[in-house]
Amino acid sequence: VTDILRYRPAADEYVWTFGGAAPVARIAPGTVLELFTEDCFAGRVRGTADLVSEVVEFPYVNPQTGPFHVDGAEPGDTLAVHFVSIEPARDWAASTTVPLFGALTSTHLTATLQEPLPEVVWIWQLDRAARLCRFEARFGDFTVDLPMDPMHGTVGVAPANLEVRSALVPDAHGGNMDSPEMRAGVTCYLGVNVPGGLLSLGDGHARQGEGETCGVAVECAMDTVVIVDLLKGRPCPWPRIESDTHLMTTGSARPLEDAFRIAQAELVHWLRDEYGLALLDAYQLVSQAVEAPLANVVDTNYTSVAKLRKEWLPGAAPMDGAHARLREQAASYRAAHL
Amino acid sequence: VTDILRYRPAADEYVWTFGGAAPVARIAPGTVLELFTEDCFAGRVRGTADLVSEVVEFPYVNPQTGPFHVDGAEPGDTLAVHFVSIEPARDWAASTTVPLFGALTSTHLTATLQEPLPEVVWIWQLDRAARLCRFEARFGDFTVDLPMDPMHGTVGVAPANLEVRSALVPDAHGGNMDSPEMRAGVTCYLGVNVPGGLLSLGDGHARQGEGETCGVAVECAMDTVVIVDLLKGRPCPWPRIESDTHLMTTGSARPLEDAFRIAQAELVHWLRDEYGLALLDAYQLVSQAVEAPLANVVDTNYTSVAKLRKEWLPGAAPMDGAHARLREQAASYRAAHL
Amino acid sequence: VTDILRYRPAADEYVWTFGGAAPVARIAPGTVLELFTEDCFAGRVRGTADLVSEVVEFPYVNPQTGPFHVDGAEPGDTLAVHFVSIEPARDWAASTTVPLFGALTSTHLTATLQEPLPEVVWIWQLDRAARLCRFEARFGDFTVDLPMDPMHGTVGVAPANLEVRSALVPDAHGGNMDSPEMRAGVTCYLGVNVPGGLLSLGDGHARQGEGETCGVAVECAMDTVVIVDLLKGRPCPWPRIESDTHLMTTGSARPLEDAFRIAQAELVHWLRDEYGLALLDAYQLVSQAVEAPLANVVDTNYTSVAKLRKEWLPGAAPMDGAHARLREQAASYRAAHL
Amino acid sequence: VTDILRYRPAADEYVWTFGGAAPVARIAPGTVLELFTEDCFAGRVRGTADLVSEVVEFPYVNPQTGPFHVDGAEPGDTLAVHFVSIEPARDWAASTTVPLFGALTSTHLTATLQEPLPEVVWIWQLDRAARLCRFEARFGDFTVDLPMDPMHGTVGVAPANLEVRSALVPDAHGGNMDSPEMRAGVTCYLGVNVPGGLLSLGDGHARQGEGETCGVAVECAMDTVVIVDLLKGRPCPWPRIESDTHLMTTGSARPLEDAFRIAQAELVHWLRDEYGLALLDAYQLVSQAVEAPLANVVDTNYTSVAKLRKEWLPGAAPMDGAHARLREQAASYRAAHL
Repeated sequence: VTDILRYRPAADEYVWTFGGAAPVARIAPGTVLELFTEDCFAGRVRGTADLVSEVVEFPYVNPQTGPFHVDGAEPGDTLAVHFVSIEPARDWAASTTVPLFGALTSTHLTATLQEPLPEVVWIWQLDRAARLCRFEARFGDFTVDLPMDPMHGTVGVAPANLEVRSALVPDAHGGNMDSPEMRAGVTCYLGVNVPGGLLSLGDGHARQGEGETCGVAVECAMDTVVIVDLLKGRPCPWPRIESDTHLMTTGSARPLEDAFRIAQAELVHWLRDEYGLALLDAYQLVSQAVEAPLANVVDTNYTSVAKLRKEWLPGAAPMDGAHARLREQAASYRAAHL
Repeated sequence: VTDILRYRPAADEYVWTFGGAAPVARIAPGTVLELFTEDCFAGRVRGTADLVSEVVEFPYVNPQTGPFHVDGAEPGDTLAVHFVSIEPARDWAASTTVPLFGALTSTHLTATLQEPLPEVVWIWQLDRAARLCRFEARFGDFTVDLPMDPMHGTVGVAPANLEVRSALVPDAHGGNMDSPEMRAGVTCYLGVNVPGGLLSLGDGHARQGEGETCGVAVECAMDTVVIVDLLKGRPCPWPRIESDTHLMTTGSARPLEDAFRIAQAELVHWLRDEYGLALLDAYQLVSQAVEAPLANVVDTNYTSVAKLRKEWLPGAAPMDGAHARLREQAASYRAAHL
Repeated sequence: VTDILRYRPAADEYVWTFGGAAPVARIAPGTVLELFTEDCFAGRVRGTADLVSEVVEFPYVNPQTGPFHVDGAEPGDTLAVHFVSIEPARDWAASTTVPLFGALTSTHLTATLQEPLPEVVWIWQLDRAARLCRFEARFGDFTVDLPMDPMHGTVGVAPANLEVRSALVPDAHGGNMDSPEMRAGVTCYLGVNVPGGLLSLGDGHARQGEGETCGVAVECAMDTVVIVDLLKGRPCPWPRIESDTHLMTTGSARPLEDAFRIAQAELVHWLRDEYGLALLDAYQLVSQAVEAPLANVVDTNYTSVAKLRKEWLPGAAPMDGAHARLREQAASYRAAHL
Repeated sequence: VTDILRYRPAADEYVWTFGGAAPVARIAPGTVLELFTEDCFAGRVRGTADLVSEVVEFPYVNPQTGPFHVDGAEPGDTLAVHFVSIEPARDWAASTTVPLFGALTSTHLTATLQEPLPEVVWIWQLDRAARLCRFEARFGDFTVDLPMDPMHGTVGVAPANLEVRSALVPDAHGGNMDSPEMRAGVTCYLGVNVPGGLLSLGDGHARQGEGETCGVAVECAMDTVVIVDLLKGRPCPWPRIESDTHLMTTGSARPLEDAFRIAQAELVHWLRDEYGLALLDAYQLVSQAVEAPLANVVDTNYTSVAKLRKEWLPGAAPMDGAHARLREQAASYRAAHL
């Protein structure tokens, strides 16, 4: 039988970092977590008058649900986090510009002497039945419905090197990668750095463009179900994602070419290590076959994804076959509970 | 009636730069060009023993077919280059590693004290009927067929600022952008910098991964048909691409985030200028709706593409409706000639 | 009377992070600290056979002496840390190459598929009387004496945003900036992020080139005296350094131009805020008068310094005159104790 | 006897590119050139009302004096350009902000949606007898005299790869490096890419901060004397500078760490090739001994300099002893003519 843990944090139970927080629960590998995640604004942006600079209390931004201590997880192991479902918990979502944050503005790191861009809030209406997100222009009457494509911007474990990182940061421990690929149906692999791993997630997006250009997606609270498994004795240097169709690797760094290099080198190494290709053959195959969707070009580190169709690879079940196994477990759970 | 010009350069008629070469022909706007382009190795890599460092004579690499002087083209105008068809001219293609070139090696610009990677050649078999490219491992017996998706890595005009640029360089004049989006069916917009524009193209790829990780795609000679139109009085600061479904902008720069910024800002400005959105509304919409496929992360400048579904935009015919018009002209040409 | 605190950590009393460690002492503003700092290898590299990859136990690298809780320090205040003296504690020092670390090699962030550079150790003899560091070639018989110029690579406070950072990281909290400017006679200003500030320092270098090219300086244990003062109600967003002759600002980020931008913008703002220049006048003056010595181009963030002669500025005593005051206090201390 | 050529271009005789222009004279190796160079604005900014965006006619900016064809120069050789004297030709100089240009603003490459900074002109008075440059604030009454330190921002040869580059661009051919190290008394080494080399120079600065933060130095016309020598059969991949005291290498690239890497690797290679150090010994010595003054962080490529004291090196006369020889020739010239 599968353990199922339902957890909806109280207002004062969110965490704001990866590492540095006591676990809210200890779970056995294979546990299903039924979670509520608040939006990145801690729910404080509810209308176009709610400017982030006024209503959000830094550093209490991007609240995470967790962390969960996975029994038996040790450094050198990997957590496999399968996203069973990610469903917007409200019928609206918010996006904004934030002063000195985003790709098309100067920032605290890309410093200039110019004035910041104006601060503007957009409230998006979500039609959950039709799976649509409605954009309404603030400075005109244009409206358009975009497909809903729910995802988690942030998922990760406690970092290595004795560090505690803000939930705004993506790095080798995962965190705020802001990749649209983190949608229902995929398995995310996260290398364990501390006993128990200490998994948290949050920052739901009803949808997001690749790169998250203005720095903020269609932000909304989520009802999310994940199954958490443990792969013993198998390291995972950078977060990986597996879908039914693709292998994906991630890299988070600056400048953006370094994020690209990490993700691509990780994919080459994955093909070498699990599919038996020689290093340079893997390099060649990746060069011609890879997709390279950007995740974010706005956070403390930028995140690049490398993505390869599994059908083009020799018949291996990577990562100990975790994805297929979790896919089945998810189907059973869905049959019983959804 | 449409002018049709067939041009297959002799071995000594290729050009190796954008700018700095006399036009091979003067053409009227609307002319159909039936072209042959040689591969980036000038056809000298024909087997796995043909190492680039031995058989290619630098700087005579990446030969271009052209340039074509478009009658009436003046600085401030834009060329619209519609790709009617791009067909591999041989049943094989070549790819290689090149010492100190590529994303996962140190290079002349990202200098290290390490030894270069080994130089290896892969010959890909092309099944043009089945539209497949066959990868054969060099260091094992793995083989896989990838879909053929022919494209031109290089298309551009003479640059601004009195410059002449190597055909290996992508920049605001186009050039070696190496984007898989440059496939048959799209229209590429290139701002004119000198009288006549001086359009050239080359560097055909039977297919290419996003980012062109090892620096070299599945390189092959091409039989290509383009229609070249002229948009008077309409500038285009960076190359744009329009397909039946998408608007695309490009940016080429280093570091990669600057290429991303250019492409994204260009798309925001396009929505503002041709679709009537306010600047910040355009920024928000792009942030949630954009795809950001990388083109190359290996050349002198890196190239990022921003891509937006036209169905999500108000009903405008951008760029004076050039794409629809050229699409029709291409259909007529195809009906008559293919 | 001045409080003097002498502190030499036991082997298990070093800390490896900024933030996240309990203070070893509470001190009043104005306290003189007589400290011992271990070298970045925790003293484990003592000969050319002691390879970092074998003798150092990650993440226990770059040990820090501290942290010290400064009474009354609150977020929004600034610590002024005056370096009275920095003296090598041994008559030798060590430097090495470290696999996948340094500016002229691929690294974990600038990932390539090449082999790492070989791991080599150099032991430098220090002639403390003559103030010389002797380089001896490992692969030949060349020897040269370079001037000793002792400095601390690492000095900082607990970071903002609830974070704990590895002692290998430089950022807005200071940390591993690796600037040769951090020598005896200067005052370093560090903005306080948490109550008490939590100051630590370590990573002594007998000397270092600008940029710390191979990633490792002439590393040695130090006997160091600092005076720690508190500037109430005065924020300091990024670490600053003041010498008798120069104002200096720092920025730590990637890519390196972002580190440069931060340091230069900080200097412009300093001139505007404390010397009464208009923003653009300050921009112009800095543009023509600044020196821009690099600190490190190898750590998790790169560090750039902007440096301006005080004699060229209107007669202000910046930072509440802290440097002049501490300079006097240091003279008294020296007269009494050295 | 030494050839002396005096050349003061007429208004229509300046060139705006490296490469692509016919030589104004053929000179023998060893020729003394007595040159006039116009300022980067082509002399059009003469008062605070002369905004660059209004008075300068792009791309006719940064006029160069030359090019000079050096008899016998072939690809694989190196030009040694010794700066005998660089003297401001007027008693004033100009600096400005330029919209979307400079380090502390968004630019055409680092694109944002913000408004550009205001355009402001500063006129600097030059006291050539006292060797002082007077800064006068535009928005207050602050005035300060900075030491005059005349230099050339731009010196270079025709580029490789069949290219023609704008005089605003620094790269392996030299060009607009904007390094304060290019002052009287140094010898600049430039690798020859085309027959005759085609040397030009311009862009005099009465002084400049390191990094040229706002993008524009204290710009003035110059009376400059150089001696041009030819080193046969000796390549020089990137520009080098030798002074009486230092070896210097340069790298020009983006991001800035790549410029740093090039300059540092060039210096390591120089020590290996001319001073007999093993590669890793050279790496270690450079790491501890180098100075790394930035040149520009504003141009199309950023330029970093690596600088090493010759007294710390084994007794070699690098570059065939060209600097010492040219120093002597300069002394003779000075004795006879100045």
